[in-house]
Amino acid sequence: MSNTFGTHFRLTTFGESHGAAIGGVVDGCPAGIVIDRQLLSDDMARRHAGNAATSRREPDEVELLSGIYEETTLGTPIAFLIRNSQARSDDYDQLKELCRPGHADYTYLQRYGRRDHRGGGRASARETAARVAGGALAKMMLRSTGISIQAQVAESPSPADHDSSGGIITCTIDHLPAGIGDPIFDKLNARLAAAMMSIPSAIGFEMGAGFEAARMPGSQYRDAWNSDFTTRTNHCGGIQGGISNGMPVVFRTAFHPVVTIDQPTECIDANGNLKTIIPGGRHDQCHLPRTVVIVEAMAALTLADFMARTNP
Amino acid sequence: MSNTFGTHFRLTTFGESHGAAIGGVVDGCPAGIVIDRQLLSDDMARRHAGNAATSRREPDEVELLSGIYEETTLGTPIAFLIRNSQARSDDYDQLKELCRPGHADYTYLQRYGRRDHRGGGRASARETAARVAGGALAKMMLRSTGISIQAQVAESPSPADHDSSGGIITCTIDHLPAGIGDPIFDKLNARLAAAMMSIPSAIGFEMGAGFEAARMPGSQYRDAWNSDFTTRTNHCGGIQGGISNGMPVVFRTAFHPVVTIDQPTECIDANGNLKTIIPGGRHDQCHLPRTVVIVEAMAALTLADFMARTNP
Amino acid sequence: MSNTFGTHFRLTTFGESHGAAIGGVVDGCPAGIVIDRQLLSDDMARRHAGNAATSRREPDEVELLSGIYEETTLGTPIAFLIRNSQARSDDYDQLKELCRPGHADYTYLQRYGRRDHRGGGRASARETAARVAGGALAKMMLRSTGISIQAQVAESPSPADHDSSGGIITCTIDHLPAGIGDPIFDKLNARLAAAMMSIPSAIGFEMGAGFEAARMPGSQYRDAWNSDFTTRTNHCGGIQGGISNGMPVVFRTAFHPVVTIDQPTECIDANGNLKTIIPGGRHDQCHLPRTVVIVEAMAALTLADFMARTNP
Amino acid sequence: MSNTFGTHFRLTTFGESHGAAIGGVVDGCPAGIVIDRQLLSDDMARRHAGNAATSRREPDEVELLSGIYEETTLGTPIAFLIRNSQARSDDYDQLKELCRPGHADYTYLQRYGRRDHRGGGRASARETAARVAGGALAKMMLRSTGISIQAQVAESPSPADHDSSGGIITCTIDHLPAGIGDPIFDKLNARLAAAMMSIPSAIGFEMGAGFEAARMPGSQYRDAWNSDFTTRTNHCGGIQGGISNGMPVVFRTAFHPVVTIDQPTECIDANGNLKTIIPGGRHDQCHLPRTVVIVEAMAALTLADFMARTNP
Repeated sequence: MSNTFGTHFRLTTFGESHGAAIGGVVDGCPAGIVIDRQLLSDDMARRHAGNAATSRREPDEVELLSGIYEETTLGTPIAFLIRNSQARSDDYDQLKELCRPGHADYTYLQRYGRRDHRGGGRASARETAARVAGGALAKMMLRSTGISIQAQVAESPSPADHDSSGGIITCTIDHLPAGIGDPIFDKLNARLAAAMMSIPSAIGFEMGAGFEAARMPGSQYRDAWNSDFTTRTNHCGGIQGGISNGMPVVFRTAFHPVVTIDQPTECIDANGNLKTIIPGGRHDQCHLPRTVVIVEAMAALTLADFMARTNP
Repeated sequence: MSNTFGTHFRLTTFGESHGAAIGGVVDGCPAGIVIDRQLLSDDMARRHAGNAATSRREPDEVELLSGIYEETTLGTPIAFLIRNSQARSDDYDQLKELCRPGHADYTYLQRYGRRDHRGGGRASARETAARVAGGALAKMMLRSTGISIQAQVAESPSPADHDSSGGIITCTIDHLPAGIGDPIFDKLNARLAAAMMSIPSAIGFEMGAGFEAARMPGSQYRDAWNSDFTTRTNHCGGIQGGISNGMPVVFRTAFHPVVTIDQPTECIDANGNLKTIIPGGRHDQCHLPRTVVIVEAMAALTLADFMARTNP
Repeated sequence: MSNTFGTHFRLTTFGESHGAAIGGVVDGCPAGIVIDRQLLSDDMARRHAGNAATSRREPDEVELLSGIYEETTLGTPIAFLIRNSQARSDDYDQLKELCRPGHADYTYLQRYGRRDHRGGGRASARETAARVAGGALAKMMLRSTGISIQAQVAESPSPADHDSSGGIITCTIDHLPAGIGDPIFDKLNARLAAAMMSIPSAIGFEMGAGFEAARMPGSQYRDAWNSDFTTRTNHCGGIQGGISNGMPVVFRTAFHPVVTIDQPTECIDANGNLKTIIPGGRHDQCHLPRTVVIVEAMAALTLADFMARTNP
Repeated sequence: MSNTFGTHFRLTTFGESHGAAIGGVVDGCPAGIVIDRQLLSDDMARRHAGNAATSRREPDEVELLSGIYEETTLGTPIAFLIRNSQARSDDYDQLKELCRPGHADYTYLQRYGRRDHRGGGRASARETAARVAGGALAKMMLRSTGISIQAQVAESPSPADHDSSGGIITCTIDHLPAGIGDPIFDKLNARLAAAMMSIPSAIGFEMGAGFEAARMPGSQYRDAWNSDFTTRTNHCGGIQGGISNGMPVVFRTAFHPVVTIDQPTECIDANGNLKTIIPGGRHDQCHLPRTVVIVEAMAALTLADFMARTNP
């Protein structure tokens, strides 16, 4: 199920960084949702922006192929396509036999026995463009219910010269009604954690007070009731027993720094020989600004999946 | 799918805290695994121990009902049963109309419209006994491959008088071969995050250097190769691109403090009236010691699920 | 997924014919369904009756273990247990090394490398007792919507002396509203076909006019409209494009004859040696009468699964 | 899951008859399968041929978008696209408010509340082009194991003037090893039944001797062993207990006649008014010749799904 996210509102993504195209299929979107092409292109632009160094000049136009009639969803699968127009795969020739540190080169080889080395192939961050497109469709569905999602960079050190940095992104979900989520294994917080940790370079996740909550006494931690069923604090981050309680859902995701940096880089070949290269290709110094919309997309897909369960 | 964990090696749990029994069904366990009843009872005892205050004197004996012939698995479903012998549900009468702070009382009511209020019903931590039993079966399967899992309390403040505490548990998976895990949405780290966040009171998760990695420059973060394909550091926690790299898999889970404490507790009824009660029932002051084996169980179930994909 | 039926209203069955118990877990049953223990025991009795020769004198009492509070479902998993009290496994000793003709002995060995030979083990028709219990729960859920299911033997030749027979069972679903089912791969008729063909000894399935429809001209086959949206004929069997049209859903399932007969039976051992035995154990001459309630159970489970999609 | 077939080797199809394109995504195809573009275009041509009356002159060229590098699969999703180049949707204007007899017009409206009426929209037989493309990829995977699939028309009456006909297609799977399939609910025969019954206009399915087996005595039905583990007859159609026994797998699928015919046709509008129209658009008098390759495709997808379970 590795390329499919969700069980009711499902996004399947496809495509390699330097193949003909990337794209996806959204299945399970209810009929009657109005398509907002501006939202779609705005979110694609937010992912595209960020560090100028990596800007493939591709417009990343999303072609919607199916599931829509008169700008409204039919309830049938919505397929979309993003062409790869500027694939300069020569940049990657020196990597054909090498595995870089911090990358998934070695693990993909161990998993599949072969890989498309050009620009990371399927492991490229370019795959996240399909998540953003699918997330925009999820946002359109959620909007009709009043739910809104907003992420922002909470913390991100400046990258030093010829180095890179990571950071932390906070996400808040407002107007989510109480009673959304499932108990036991499909807790809303568990599904959000999986969604966030599936984003390239994610390395930590916490709800509400998070790791700090581990150091609080219970008398401080537990959120006291107001008589309107809101709580005076929100240490739990809006979820109890895996189910939303009507307060804002708040979580933070930590991202490790970009692993491609403008420095000599010691790679390894299949025989265990170490070889130092200077990386080519395109890469950010810090990817946090363009990751914000990906966090929102994965949160939207997670919630749309829960909401679609009651929406045949 | 809320009561089922996994897609290939699957555990389905059932049972309320004060019903006739709790238990589970493991489906997808390969044929030919030798049953180790000592491991099973040891792990059940590890979950049972901990704070004396909550010790239901039940032995938590696990009856294996199916899927085993001559102490070896048949490849068919393994059902198991744990009887609830000492249900004193009178303790909970005062809670029938009230929602406690920090508990899932209110969210279950919003989700289902009704609940079994006795001892938390399905939301009770008692459900984790079925996870531990299923996890022990997963460990038996993993043992044949050499994989071992070890968790321990990393940090846990002492609870103050009449108060409670949480803490952090570290888990290490040794001898996991490189190449286990899936890319994109089913990353091994994403699945581990979901597994951990599904444990009652889990509130944070991090791989390897975790939140600290968000503050490192890339030159420090990325783990340099040794010529034997190990790495000099293990900041990534043994997983790259969602797939294991052959190093130990290391992660930490934060747990918020126990929310039932020996203090007057302000609850809310269906009309929004606040009412102060003194909690009865049984509860720990700190649940970390008994949570260690639950962390191991969920890690074992996660890995068994990945390993079972290649083991028809 | 082999031991689980359904995606929303799901039955997982477990147990070998001569193990400690058989049983099942129903997950996804909505909260608020009233339990009808009479219906449950009646359906168990219908499966149990039939040919006296095979009557294990076991009462087949179903113990409900979880998911029910005050005789009403909680929305949590409903586990149930049927003890195997009269396992006379000596009857089967001569079969330990042999594969019988027409049975699944050889195919199970090829699939798993080992099997529980006693009474067919997991492949025993005894597994269908768990289907009937799960089906009774499905009927309780469907009853609240007015849907009713009725099967009967349509055709069944008399078995000759020392021989056996099969036959055909018709099933009719009344009061199913129009609009139930899914298009493309999850058509209601496709799901019913899979449900029926999963019953031991099922060998054919047809909707409405079935194989006869293959010989009709289109002008005769297509069901003409009445102005109240019923149709003048029901050749399609109440389903179009995979979705119910409001007419009765009608289908027939063919069952091959019982393959254990009171005659010398040529078996094969692992080396390809043929050896003639006289079968012991218990077996029917014709299993159609007791299969009727199994057909109803599988139809009920199929429909409950579709209905549960809109019933969180 | 309605638009996805399979759990390991999965085909998701998308597209409406008169939208921009139809297509699909195959996920779970192992790495290292060599692409045979001739097989793909041959199978597309087999579906396209048949009755000249319906030949949209579109070439139905399949564009492979991802998952392939140097004409070999990568183990990542294989997306493909078939453009709809000749959509003459004016032909369908008279149908916008009407439901035809024998079609899924009425049931789609009941299910979704809206539909794309042009050429049947998602319910169009055009959707099967994506199945044939996906099936060709499945055949490429199966070919490496030696498994071959062959279907043919067994019986098909000549359509009368201005009328239509259906018929029966036989399919044989050769060289399938013993031990493929699952017991209980995921029997190979149950999965094949669902696959076949999901094809537009399928109305009956039988394995081996099928409905005739219901009339045989057991002594005639049960297939006697040869000492090489083949059987002297093949009444069961090569499957026992849901698992292949090494004999050819043989099954037959009945298809009802085409429901669009060159005769005045009484349709119904939303208010229950009957109105007679003369059908426009394109349609076959008999669709059996072009259905043969669809039967093969669905059989190939079913088997590839079972084979992929042991092929990470």
